[in-house]
Amino acid sequence: MSPSRSQGKLYVVGIGPGGVDYLTKKAEKVLLGSEYVIGNGAYIDQISGILKNTKIIRSGMGGEVERAKKAVELSKEHIVSIISGGDANIYGMAGIVLEVAEKEEDIDIEVISGVTAISAAASLLGAPLVNDFAVVSLSDLLTPIAIIERRLNCAAEGDFVIAIYNPKSKNRKKNFGKSIEILRKYRSAETPVGIVRNATRKGETVIATTLGKIMDHNEDINMSTVVLIGNSESRLWKSRIITPRGYQKKYDY
Amino acid sequence: MSPSRSQGKLYVVGIGPGGVDYLTKKAEKVLLGSEYVIGNGAYIDQISGILKNTKIIRSGMGGEVERAKKAVELSKEHIVSIISGGDANIYGMAGIVLEVAEKEEDIDIEVISGVTAISAAASLLGAPLVNDFAVVSLSDLLTPIAIIERRLNCAAEGDFVIAIYNPKSKNRKKNFGKSIEILRKYRSAETPVGIVRNATRKGETVIATTLGKIMDHNEDINMSTVVLIGNSESRLWKSRIITPRGYQKKYDY
Repeated sequence: MSPSRSQGKLYVVGIGPGGVDYLTKKAEKVLLGSEYVIGNGAYIDQISGILKNTKIIRSGMGGEVERAKKAVELSKEHIVSIISGGDANIYGMAGIVLEVAEKEEDIDIEVISGVTAISAAASLLGAPLVNDFAVVSLSDLLTPIAIIERRLNCAAEGDFVIAIYNPKSKNRKKNFGKSIEILRKYRSAETPVGIVRNATRKGETVIATTLGKIMDHNEDINMSTVVLIGNSESRLWKSRIITPRGYQKKYDY
Repeated sequence: MSPSRSQGKLYVVGIGPGGVDYLTKKAEKVLLGSEYVIGNGAYIDQISGILKNTKIIRSGMGGEVERAKKAVELSKEHIVSIISGGDANIYGMAGIVLEVAEKEEDIDIEVISGVTAISAAASLLGAPLVNDFAVVSLSDLLTPIAIIERRLNCAAEGDFVIAIYNPKSKNRKKNFGKSIEILRKYRSAETPVGIVRNATRKGETVIATTLGKIMDHNEDINMSTVVLIGNSESRLWKSRIITPRGYQKKYDY
């Protein structure tokens, strides 16, 4: 056995927004070559169909720190993949895994990028995200609400397209409405808004509406929803949203 | 032949940041089922190895409008894929394709998301992008420089991690330095910065440095580079960047 093999390796793998269809070949190769695959049960379910002789460790939602510690510990002697829904970075597991590994000596870590839920939601809406954008999570578990609101103000002032992550959770339903009020100070009621739930997964729903009417869809928004707010130039087209890149100003077509 | 088949279909396909390794299974399936695949030559080269009986139409960089028109026209009678490096939305082809299709009747379009270069760059740096972030392109071809600078100011003020796209081009080298000066007004010289060129492709280079030292690497930055600027909590760890999600404040580990 080579020294590197006996020392093990830890992969943090973005598995994409849903199902094996959005897995990359790279991610598949890494998962199939792993002795252990660790992840939240819902994400394990997305990929378990392709795993053959792999030991699977399911963990509950919210157990991120314990999961990361377990993965780091196992990776000292084994080839281990810890999986992340969507991309490994964007609100994914890469952060906590590196934070845990930072306290250890010489953990061999490789992060494998995946398709983020933001891209998946944008594709289902057409072309809302082809210009500069900002991404804000409304979860106040790990970020103070004052910082979240400051970011919403700054993103709106900069005329960024805004992707809202974690708009609500089981125990946090109120700051979504407050966030929309903040955005309404900067953007008109006609601003296109996309609401995408379970993008590319079972139960997928896609709604294209406006900032003025978004609260009519309040009940459709939960923790599996990404909300995209257009910039000042975005427009609705049939059931889709187009944010012009600026070509029309430059080219005659 | 079914009516939908005889009417053709247009896919806008994100092929990921480089090589077939980062292609999703969904994208591969769509490309293999297409009669025509249209794209910029460099992106065609990334995937041409998997294409068998497909007619390939190569187009030059900068010919986006003509390429989109050609794809829309062909899709009236054929199954056509127009490809986009990275994701189809994020500075990708979905926008111009939908803008062209908007002027036609009933073009059947589906957008397929892919791994964006931002995620690929972030993964190579470890975990710089696990908290709220903003993405700004420095290209002033389609966006006035005043808007670009306003966005940099807003993103910096909001303490977003900032991903800079198109930091330079052959004919535009100066506004990168100006942009760094803007960010320096808000962030310390010690702020971690990642410079990733040709992420997951041939000639890949990854540099982790600081905002104070970034201009020492000015020559390494070109149009194939993504620059990631950490937020006020980001830190360098070995050759990597970690942006804490906030777990450490909440959990004792």
